[in-house]
Amino acid sequence: MIRVGIAGASGYTGSELIRLLLNHPEAAISVLTSEKNAGAPISSVFPSLLGLIDLPCESLKKSDLENRCDLIFSALPHREGMDVVGDLIKAGKRAIDLSADFRLKDFQTYEKWYGAAHTQKDLLGRAVYGLPEIHRDLIRNAQLVANPGCYPTGAILGLAPLLKSDWISTSGIVVDSKSGTSGAGRNAGLPLLFPECNEGVKAYNIAVHRHTPEMEQEMAGIAGKEVMITFSPHLIPVNRGILSTIYCDLREGKDLDSVLTLYSNFYAGEPFVRVLEKGSLANTRYVLGSNFCDIGIALEARSNTLVVTTAIDNLVKGASGAAIQNMNVMFGFPEGTGLKGAGLFP
Amino acid sequence: MIRVGIAGASGYTGSELIRLLLNHPEAAISVLTSEKNAGAPISSVFPSLLGLIDLPCESLKKSDLENRCDLIFSALPHREGMDVVGDLIKAGKRAIDLSADFRLKDFQTYEKWYGAAHTQKDLLGRAVYGLPEIHRDLIRNAQLVANPGCYPTGAILGLAPLLKSDWISTSGIVVDSKSGTSGAGRNAGLPLLFPECNEGVKAYNIAVHRHTPEMEQEMAGIAGKEVMITFSPHLIPVNRGILSTIYCDLREGKDLDSVLTLYSNFYAGEPFVRVLEKGSLANTRYVLGSNFCDIGIALEARSNTLVVTTAIDNLVKGASGAAIQNMNVMFGFPEGTGLKGAGLFP
Amino acid sequence: MIRVGIAGASGYTGSELIRLLLNHPEAAISVLTSEKNAGAPISSVFPSLLGLIDLPCESLKKSDLENRCDLIFSALPHREGMDVVGDLIKAGKRAIDLSADFRLKDFQTYEKWYGAAHTQKDLLGRAVYGLPEIHRDLIRNAQLVANPGCYPTGAILGLAPLLKSDWISTSGIVVDSKSGTSGAGRNAGLPLLFPECNEGVKAYNIAVHRHTPEMEQEMAGIAGKEVMITFSPHLIPVNRGILSTIYCDLREGKDLDSVLTLYSNFYAGEPFVRVLEKGSLANTRYVLGSNFCDIGIALEARSNTLVVTTAIDNLVKGASGAAIQNMNVMFGFPEGTGLKGAGLFP
Amino acid sequence: MIRVGIAGASGYTGSELIRLLLNHPEAAISVLTSEKNAGAPISSVFPSLLGLIDLPCESLKKSDLENRCDLIFSALPHREGMDVVGDLIKAGKRAIDLSADFRLKDFQTYEKWYGAAHTQKDLLGRAVYGLPEIHRDLIRNAQLVANPGCYPTGAILGLAPLLKSDWISTSGIVVDSKSGTSGAGRNAGLPLLFPECNEGVKAYNIAVHRHTPEMEQEMAGIAGKEVMITFSPHLIPVNRGILSTIYCDLREGKDLDSVLTLYSNFYAGEPFVRVLEKGSLANTRYVLGSNFCDIGIALEARSNTLVVTTAIDNLVKGASGAAIQNMNVMFGFPEGTGLKGAGLFP
Repeated sequence: MIRVGIAGASGYTGSELIRLLLNHPEAAISVLTSEKNAGAPISSVFPSLLGLIDLPCESLKKSDLENRCDLIFSALPHREGMDVVGDLIKAGKRAIDLSADFRLKDFQTYEKWYGAAHTQKDLLGRAVYGLPEIHRDLIRNAQLVANPGCYPTGAILGLAPLLKSDWISTSGIVVDSKSGTSGAGRNAGLPLLFPECNEGVKAYNIAVHRHTPEMEQEMAGIAGKEVMITFSPHLIPVNRGILSTIYCDLREGKDLDSVLTLYSNFYAGEPFVRVLEKGSLANTRYVLGSNFCDIGIALEARSNTLVVTTAIDNLVKGASGAAIQNMNVMFGFPEGTGLKGAGLFP
Repeated sequence: MIRVGIAGASGYTGSELIRLLLNHPEAAISVLTSEKNAGAPISSVFPSLLGLIDLPCESLKKSDLENRCDLIFSALPHREGMDVVGDLIKAGKRAIDLSADFRLKDFQTYEKWYGAAHTQKDLLGRAVYGLPEIHRDLIRNAQLVANPGCYPTGAILGLAPLLKSDWISTSGIVVDSKSGTSGAGRNAGLPLLFPECNEGVKAYNIAVHRHTPEMEQEMAGIAGKEVMITFSPHLIPVNRGILSTIYCDLREGKDLDSVLTLYSNFYAGEPFVRVLEKGSLANTRYVLGSNFCDIGIALEARSNTLVVTTAIDNLVKGASGAAIQNMNVMFGFPEGTGLKGAGLFP
Repeated sequence: MIRVGIAGASGYTGSELIRLLLNHPEAAISVLTSEKNAGAPISSVFPSLLGLIDLPCESLKKSDLENRCDLIFSALPHREGMDVVGDLIKAGKRAIDLSADFRLKDFQTYEKWYGAAHTQKDLLGRAVYGLPEIHRDLIRNAQLVANPGCYPTGAILGLAPLLKSDWISTSGIVVDSKSGTSGAGRNAGLPLLFPECNEGVKAYNIAVHRHTPEMEQEMAGIAGKEVMITFSPHLIPVNRGILSTIYCDLREGKDLDSVLTLYSNFYAGEPFVRVLEKGSLANTRYVLGSNFCDIGIALEARSNTLVVTTAIDNLVKGASGAAIQNMNVMFGFPEGTGLKGAGLFP
Repeated sequence: MIRVGIAGASGYTGSELIRLLLNHPEAAISVLTSEKNAGAPISSVFPSLLGLIDLPCESLKKSDLENRCDLIFSALPHREGMDVVGDLIKAGKRAIDLSADFRLKDFQTYEKWYGAAHTQKDLLGRAVYGLPEIHRDLIRNAQLVANPGCYPTGAILGLAPLLKSDWISTSGIVVDSKSGTSGAGRNAGLPLLFPECNEGVKAYNIAVHRHTPEMEQEMAGIAGKEVMITFSPHLIPVNRGILSTIYCDLREGKDLDSVLTLYSNFYAGEPFVRVLEKGSLANTRYVLGSNFCDIGIALEARSNTLVVTTAIDNLVKGASGAAIQNMNVMFGFPEGTGLKGAGLFP
């Protein structure tokens, strides 16, 4: 049994970490921090937790995290947790950072897209991008894991087999993603107000979303060459779920059957990737609350345009579930421990 | 480890039983029946289950249920499963019936409200109404448990402490319930079509809903005298959840604090009832996917009208979760086994 | 053609006034004020208005409202617009105030429930409560109309025929209302965030909601004696709509048919009240975007509990549509002018 | 004042035609047909229409449509209305067909994609594709107008300026559309049940949807050469609205500013196309209930991938509103007559 702490526990990824950890037989939550709720029981912040956990929120600075945890999940916002994580790593602790701070290998790319100086550049080389399906061996011994972004998770898993095998052109890739509203975090703001989102579908930040360089970095790593994508996020009036529809040019000589076989082989043995049978496309409805990434594929044969659809729960496989999967890998627990529940349907 | 079968597994209560049982360490699903899906894997009926369970659906008649299960959950529709359950009981098996067939003690009341002859009258006396908070001792040794209706669960738990203590008038009670759409079952019909429900709130079947006599029977049993309620169900555009707002006349000399103390004492030690602190009212948002019943209470002091609000997930505490709670009681497992997960928030 | 101004045009009732006025042949919008959007075109605040109206928002203080309008709608928040309206009235203008500031005849009741001093007490006697179905004659010549609250509209119209005829007991009345989220206004706040509301139903402010004294004042006026209600508001995850389910004790000797006849007669000729036929209950789905109030009635005959259900669009009949109906009455336009559109279905 | 009939009035496009026509000063509804509701008042089929229209539904065969109408809208399903429309045209009437039966110029393409013989081939040459922004002059004198499909409307309007000017490559075009559920019609079916759609986003019929050849035909007509697209429809849990995100390769030498200018010029004077300013992308939230098509554009400059987003209400600009716009053109009414209402927000 390991002791885990969550820094920044009062957001949606925080509450999802707690929900999942309460069901984990090898990890016990020892510390929860939240500045604005310091002193209050976490169950007053998330009444869904009433009767299940008694811990109070603590102020980060006074929490002495490093001496009370074997592993720290940082669910602090980008930039805000950078030095916190840095200090923990330097103190010898293991950490999984759910923010974007350690995902990009190149600090200049980070500084350009996130508009802030990177104060822990020396750690970038040691941080491992926490997508077990791609980097499992590195995660096993990592001290610092950068948990992937929600959009990149579905996009990278959706293209990895093709990129690895050089079956598609690495230019002209389009990632059109449809996300639920919890991806924006638990922060009040007019655009996220119920009546503003409900009954609407909108595109936003096309070609300028921060997850673009993250996707390209990881895809390039898999392909062994530069990858350029056009990324278009959309907001959908649901709580959870990201459906990504990915367009790419399939090389000649391949058909849909061979692509499906490629995927089945690539993901054989993976506990959380489900390749759907021919004719089925992804539906977020079937993964909500679960750690699965469902992949369904179609082919526009006239133009050899391959269309890969992937569905994840942005708070589970797209954030907190992936973080726990990483923890399992890091600590040698069976990878599916605490994560094998079925999605909530309906 | 017991072997359990589910007759009528292709509806929403069936899928929820499967979801919960997959997480139960003491029960293994041995048989699933569905006439219209016979031969097909259950994961093709519910793609959320892909990779988690391999069982095919079987035709009930050929399934030899009684020899392959220690316990049968019947999720068959009212009337349709009556003789199936009867035969199993007569063959010595234990069963939990999620339909209304064995809930009403008086067959004439059943025949009047359900418009069909009761063909298993001799079993009515042996069937136990499966609300553990009220009938735990009887459930322990029951061979046949009639699982409560979704609306009655929230209404009965909401009034039990008051009725038991004779703190309210047993006439003039109003139960105003707001239910999600999954309560109507997985049956296509124009009124349940997305565009017909979405963005609307409607009242239906006021004063003629079949759950009325069920509530009155159980409330009368607790109160020790006749109870008459006005029951108004409403349909809300959410998937899951029932919020019941219950109005009753508090006897003089009692105030809100004393009522809250009464509830805390009545439900002390109950694993799945959460009495909210003064000032908090029930919100289905915090119980979705969980087996909790949350209770929050207000008082209109000018008229001594007590307003009790209760929130449940109609598919969990209002159906399949309650059924598993009953199974735990019947088989001597700790009552919360497999049911202690937090609700999915958001 | 009259010139109308809207003070506080950047909220939901403001935008709904604009939408409806653009379709009104006898009124032209001459001024729109919004402090935080001063200088910006209203179509940048509400992109739905692009191409339909060119007006900029102005700062109220500099807007010289009284010289540019024949009528002012004040959609300013409670208290904030009190003196603005007072000054306009004293300057001889006619005004319709959509806030609560002039609804309560008794300033002490106002000060108790709204927690603020009333600075325009002398106007309370001259303000007319703007429910045309009840106060049409007074509205005709009113200089200041206090537009009714959203909840009171559905509750008062639902009980008026019974109260007027003394067919029900004036004690023990319960008003259980289910409201969409736009009723909370266009103000960012955690509880109104999409993921916090969506998929949930909650009760709030039971027995302490500010609309309680407003309902009681108006109901007492109709009944000719004191009326006491228990009022329970609920929040439903829809944009628009209020369904009110109202419980009262029908006097002996009356049945459902006679009640329906009473309603049909009472509302005969009313352009915006639709009494549904026996067996039909109210559904907000059918009034969205329209100025209708639908009324459907059921009777629990065993206890003589009458259950009246009413449905309105809170932003139309519950706010801006009613305001325009009042304008029509005040200025002698046919009462339905600009308001006879069907609801948006689905 | 012209007399119009609606064949097949009991579906969503039928009810929307009625809603809009009730607000049209130059057209009066004279006949409504619906086989399954024959004899019933239309307001019992759509309670939103109560008090606004008294007409009963009639059986088509007995309705003598051709002698009671100056124009017939056929909202009958594909194939079912083909001969009805054919007979009306041969009898000299003018008709607007909302089905796909007369949209495709090539009967073999129709027969391949719709799986049925075309029995009115001789009319295909005379039918005009009813997109006024493209074919206004032809519509003016058309006897038979084929009203565009919902998806094609948003896709064609989104690309027309670029195709007309040869600014993009006509291969490699991707149309990724997100549609509300009313697009599937008022037909009960398990996949459209509320709990199956709600809280989910799914892709369906990628590369095999019937609107593909319709888009390609019209785009080719505009471009003057063959166009091939990859079309991916998605289902979103909203009632109304289609957001289309369209990807194409912008020719070198053009930038976003020049593209926006091209669009502004192309659509100058169009009453129902709104080109959004730089930085704004389309949001269905702002067009619901209106006849507008909003267009917002972004550029991924690294790869010169242009991303055009368009938003329409599928039942208005995507069906019934467009039909009335066509009627206005055909009968010489100002094109915006009865259609200039703002969208319902929120």
